[in-house]
Formats: sequence, structure tokens, C-alpha cells
Amino acid sequence: MQTRQEAVEQTVMFLERCGIQLTDSEKQMIEVVDFGLHDYPRSGLQLLTYINTPRYCAKELVLFSHQTCPEHRHPPFNNTPGKQETFRCRWGEVYLFVEDEELTLNTAQEEPVCEPPKGFEQWYTCQRYILLRAGEQYTINPNTRHWFQAGQRGAVISEFSSESRDDLDIFTDPSVNRVG
Amino acid sequence: MQTRQEAVEQTVMFLERCGIQLTDSEKQMIEVVDFGLHDYPRSGLQLLTYINTPRYCAKELVLFSHQTCPEHRHPPFNNTPGKQETFRCRWGEVYLFVEDEELTLNTAQEEPVCEPPKGFEQWYTCQRYILLRAGEQYTINPNTRHWFQAGQRGAVISEFSSESRDDLDIFTDPSVNRVG
Repeated sequence: MQTRQEAVEQTVMFLERCGIQLTDSEKQMIEVVDFGLHDYPRSGLQLLTYINTPRYCAKELVLFSHQTCPEHRHPPFNNTPGKQETFRCRWGEVYLFVEDEELTLNTAQEEPVCEPPKGFEQWYTCQRYILLRAGEQYTINPNTRHWFQAGQRGAVISEFSSESRDDLDIFTDPSVNRVG
Repeated sequence: MQTRQEAVEQTVMFLERCGIQLTDSEKQMIEVVDFGLHDYPRSGLQLLTYINTPRYCAKELVLFSHQTCPEHRHPPFNNTPGKQETFRCRWGEVYLFVEDEELTLNTAQEEPVCEPPKGFEQWYTCQRYILLRAGEQYTINPNTRHWFQAGQRGAVISEFSSESRDDLDIFTDPSVNRVG
């Protein structure tokens, strides 16, 4: 089991590996998210928020090898349609599953490209995905279910979005606690 | 005099140097901006827009050695206060001059840290600056005059913002033509 400090150090290493420099105070602000599922690091996410205002938001997301962010959506709030977000892969590979009929079915081939964390399968409903490699991006519509899992090496993802309100996120698995 | 193609190749080189990968179609979308001032590359800017929606925008800006983006502001439009933007330096150094009384006066020391392009001095009114190095960032309020100049090595800057409407930008120098 990793300590928080080890996870932070590994996150900084991932970011530095792809040329992203942080100030010392930013390193202290890195979030290690276990979603309250007692399944970290398999279910989990590391992130740093650069800026979050009512008008826009920018973060770096880090996923370790095969780490999975559980399925969720960003619902409408304050007369907005909810958070819209663009994922841009900077390093590694990420399988992004989204409720989007135009994406590829995970079961189209006999071998699925990735699988939800064992024991949590029922809380993963999106079956279609896009694989993002370094330099590739995809924009997730507001209020649209999505989850994502890194490939073998892990992944670094820049997230550009409208305002982020993690406290409002709705996870498919009701036992997730995002902000706790 | 650099051709557009040479400027694009140099821009890709700057981005790759700090670990930023682009797809081939993105390389074709790089903008080489001369502001219609016949002073490129001294007055100029290279950029790539990743995403620009009514809700948010993200770009990479590249400045060559001592290159300068002329002074301008982003005025209100569509019932918004105008574009708000966060500059995050990824590589090199950028001197960001902003109408912000809390910043450092360029004339505080006898040697100014940088100077507007010769012959254009009258169109540069902001005297206060912040120096951004890799990993440092600053948020420019809407409708606030600003200009910026790279240090010796040039600079790569990630820009996170509300919607970008270059056609509405108001430059201090009336002969600037941004959208050419």
C-alpha cells in the first residue's frame, strides 16, 4: 500500500517525465483521490488544479499503470449545462470510455481493450471508448457518463474545461465519495 | 526573413523541446502572427489553439528569442466581461507586462528588464511586469491592457482562458491587424 507522500512523489515524477514543471507550493497541492472505495491505487486518480474560476478550469491528471477513474457525470448547475471538459493526452495512453455512440465498442473484438476493476463491474456502464495517445484529445459533453483507465505505462492528461465542481459529480457507484 | 514554413518548424521544435507532442493536422493549424506590423519576427507570436468553445479555451503560445506580442486588451462581449486568461510558462522565460499596480515597475532599476520594439515605444503603456519562468503562472483580468516579451531563449506558454475572440481584441497601436 502506497502512502500519500509516495503517491505525490510518483505523480511529480510522471509530470517531470513529460516536461511539466511545478513550483514547490504546487507539489503540496497535488490531490491523491481514492474515491472512498478502499481500492486505491487500482481505483484512483492523482491531479493538480492550475486554475479553477467560474469561467474556466485547467488541471493535470496523472494515472498510474492501469489505474481507473470510476464512471461519473457532471450535472447541470447554476444555469449551466454542467462541466464540459477536453482531455488531452500528454504522455502514455488512456482509454476514455464515454456515452457516445460514435466511439468504438469495447466488445467489438473478442478481447476487450480494458476491463473495470474486479468487483466493481456493475458500476461501469459505458461500453464505447477512444484511445488517446500523446498529442491526441477528446471533448466530453456536459452531463455525459464517462470513465477512464490508463494503459500499461500510465498516463498524463491535461484537462481543459468549464468550471469544475467536484462536489456535484454524480458517480454511477453510489458508494463513491469524491470529496471526502 | 523567415518564411511561414520555417516559423512553423521552429515552433514545433520549441514545443517538442518541452515535451509537447502534436498530431500532424495540429502542426498544419499553427498560426504565425505578424500583427500586420511588418516587424516580424521582432513583433510577432506563434500559437496553436487546442480547443475554443463559448465556455473555455486552451492554447499553446510560442515566442522566439526576445519576440514581443504587442499591447492589447480583451473587451467585454455577449454579456461577458471579456476574455480572462491564465498564462503558465512551460519553458524559457516571459516578461508579462500588465496594467496591475501590484506588479514590479520596469523602471524601478536603472536598467529596464526589457524594452518595447524600437520605433513602436509609444504603443506600449504598461510599465509593470511579472517574470514567469517554467512552472509559474499569472491570471490577467478581462479588459486589462497587457503585452509580453520572451527572454533570451524564447518561451513556451500554456494559455487557459474563457472563450477567445481574437477579432475583438483592442490593440494600443491602431495599425495592428490581428486577424489579417
